[in-house]
Amino acid sequence: MVETEESIEIAFSEKRVKYFFNHPLSALHQLTDPLNTVVITDDNLVSLHPELRNHQLIVIPAGEQHKQQVTVDDIISQLINFEATRQTWVVGVGGGVVTDIAGYAASVYMRGLRYGFVPTTVLAQVDAAIGGKNGIDAGLYKNIIGVIRQPEFILFDHELLQTLPDEQWINGFAEIIKHAAIADAEMFEMLEAHTLQDYRTNPALLAELIQRNALLKSDFVQRDEFEKGDRKKLNFGHTLGHAVENLYSLPHGFAVSIGMVAAASLSMRRTGFPQSDYDRLIAVLKGYGLPVDLEADGTEVMKLLKMDKKRVSDQISVILLNRIGESVIQPIPVTELEAFCTETFNS
Amino acid sequence: MVETEESIEIAFSEKRVKYFFNHPLSALHQLTDPLNTVVITDDNLVSLHPELRNHQLIVIPAGEQHKQQVTVDDIISQLINFEATRQTWVVGVGGGVVTDIAGYAASVYMRGLRYGFVPTTVLAQVDAAIGGKNGIDAGLYKNIIGVIRQPEFILFDHELLQTLPDEQWINGFAEIIKHAAIADAEMFEMLEAHTLQDYRTNPALLAELIQRNALLKSDFVQRDEFEKGDRKKLNFGHTLGHAVENLYSLPHGFAVSIGMVAAASLSMRRTGFPQSDYDRLIAVLKGYGLPVDLEADGTEVMKLLKMDKKRVSDQISVILLNRIGESVIQPIPVTELEAFCTETFNS
Repeated sequence: MVETEESIEIAFSEKRVKYFFNHPLSALHQLTDPLNTVVITDDNLVSLHPELRNHQLIVIPAGEQHKQQVTVDDIISQLINFEATRQTWVVGVGGGVVTDIAGYAASVYMRGLRYGFVPTTVLAQVDAAIGGKNGIDAGLYKNIIGVIRQPEFILFDHELLQTLPDEQWINGFAEIIKHAAIADAEMFEMLEAHTLQDYRTNPALLAELIQRNALLKSDFVQRDEFEKGDRKKLNFGHTLGHAVENLYSLPHGFAVSIGMVAAASLSMRRTGFPQSDYDRLIAVLKGYGLPVDLEADGTEVMKLLKMDKKRVSDQISVILLNRIGESVIQPIPVTELEAFCTETFNS
Repeated sequence: MVETEESIEIAFSEKRVKYFFNHPLSALHQLTDPLNTVVITDDNLVSLHPELRNHQLIVIPAGEQHKQQVTVDDIISQLINFEATRQTWVVGVGGGVVTDIAGYAASVYMRGLRYGFVPTTVLAQVDAAIGGKNGIDAGLYKNIIGVIRQPEFILFDHELLQTLPDEQWINGFAEIIKHAAIADAEMFEMLEAHTLQDYRTNPALLAELIQRNALLKSDFVQRDEFEKGDRKKLNFGHTLGHAVENLYSLPHGFAVSIGMVAAASLSMRRTGFPQSDYDRLIAVLKGYGLPVDLEADGTEVMKLLKMDKKRVSDQISVILLNRIGESVIQPIPVTELEAFCTETFNS
C-alpha cells in the first residue's frame, strides 16, 4: 500500500488501519496496485460508478437478502477464476452489506487476504465498515456467521453520499443517533440543533459528523476489539433490532431505531433513565425520519431473540441507557424479555 | 473446561492449548459439560463408537469429497437448531476432514465458539488436528477456504487407532516421515529401524512416536503461527501433493508421499540434496507402504499448482531438503515447475 501523509492510523490489536477521510473513490488506484486488486461491489453501484469496471471486478446482487453464504460461494469461485493469491488485495466498495460480505470473503479465502473498504453509504461510513466485524446471515439469523479481522484501510469519499436516496440517509442516521445516545451527549445536542437537511446540504458539517462517528466507533473497538465488554454497547437497539430487521425486511437503521425505542423503554424501568431523555430520543429519531414503533409478532421476534449472539444460557445482555450519552450493559432474563416483547408487540 | 494435572499446555499467540496425551475418548465428558457441548463427527465413527450418541451430535458424511461448504452450511443450521450460543463448546471427533471442518464451523459460527478435538486417525493425531489451521476445499482446490484459530484442547486416545484399516495407518505415516525428513534426522533413523507393524503392535512405541510428532509440529507452529516463514516447511510434499490429491482422489498421505518424492528430486538439482539421502527417503516411504510414483496429467496438475496458497506472482515457494532432517524454502518460477511437471508426469 502506498504511504501517504493524509491518513489517520488507528491501532487495533494486530494491525494499524489507515483511514483516508475526504478522499475521492478515484484515489483508490493509488492505494493498491489495480493489477493486483479485486474490487467487490454490487450491481447498483456499478451502474452509478461505471469507472469501477476498470478494476478486476466481482459484482454481487444488491440487498440484505443476498448477505448469505451463496453469495460468498460465488465470490470465492470468482477469486479462484481471477487466480487471486495471498498477495491479492480485495477492496469492498459499497454499503454495509457489501463491506460485510467482502471482508468475510477476504478473511476466509486462502485463510485471509489483505483488504480495504470504500463505504458508500452513511451507515457504512459511520458504522458498518469500521471495526473488523464481518460476516453474513444464515436465513433470518443476522450476522450469525463471520469473523473479526481488520481491514488495511478505509477510504471515506463523502461525495459518494450525494447520490443516496432519502431512505439511505435516514438509515445511516440511526447509527449516528445511537452513537450519540450511548456515548456522546454533546453530539446528541448537535443532532437536536440540526436537521437531516442541514447535513445533506453542508459538506463540511457532514464531513465533521462522519469523522466524529467513525472515530467514536473506532475508540470503542480499540478498547475492546473482541467484544468482551464495552464494545457490546454499540449493540444498543440491535438486540431487538436484528430480530425484527429480517423478519419484516426493514432497512437496518429503521430496525435499530425501533430497537432503541424498546431498549430506552426498558431502561426507564431498570436504570432510572429519565422520561425527559426518553422523550428527547424519540424526538430526535422522529426528527431524522426514523420509525419509533412497529406492529410485530411477539412470538416470532422472541424465537430470533433467543439466538442473539449475546445470550448466555437463559439471559441476554441488553444495552440500556442511564441517561443520554451514558450506557450500561445488563443481563436480562429471557423470560422478562419475553413478557416485554408480548407487551410491546400487540399483534 | 475442567483443570487437570495431566495435560501439557502449548502456548500459541492468543491462547494456551491443552494436549491430553493417552486419555480415553470417554474422558471427554470431563473436559466440557456435555449439556453445553455439540460433538461433530462422521457417520463411520458413529458406527464404531455408538456412545457418541450420548452427546448433542452433528454427523457429517465421511470422506474428503465432503470437505466442502455445503457440509459447513449443514453444520451451521444444526448448530442453530441446537440453539448453540457463544458459551457452547464444539468438539470435533474424527480424522483430519472432520477436525478441519469442525474447527472451521466453530470459528465462523457467531464469529467463533470454543472448540476441542479428538483426532481419531494417525494423520490427525500427528498433524491435521494440530496448529489451528482449519477449513475446507472449494471443488478441487484443497483448503482454499479457512482461518487460523487454535482449539482449546486436543485429546489423544491412542486406542482409537487400533480399529483403523491398513490404508489409514499408512496414510498417517506419510506425515510422520515428512516431519522426520524436514526436521528430525534422529526420528528418521528410528523409522528406518522399525516397521509399521512394530508401531501397530507396540502401544508404548506408538504413543511415544505420536507425542514426538505432535510436539514437533506444535514447535513449528509456535515459532510461526501465521505461516510467514518456518511453518511453511511443514508443507514439504504438499505443494504437488495437494494438486494430485483431489485430482486423482488419493488418500492425503499417498498424495504427500508422491509430492515428497518430487520435492526430493527437485532438491537434488537445487540444493545438493545427496542421492544417498534421496534413496533413504524412497526406501522409508516404500517400507511404510506409501506410493512413490504416479501417472498423472501434467497440464491438469499445473492448473491446480498455480492456485497454491504459497504462490507469489509467478513463483511458488517450494520446500526442499538440504539433507535428511534439514529443509529449506525456495521460491521457484512457475515455468520451471511446469517443465518439471511435464518431465515427471509423462502421461
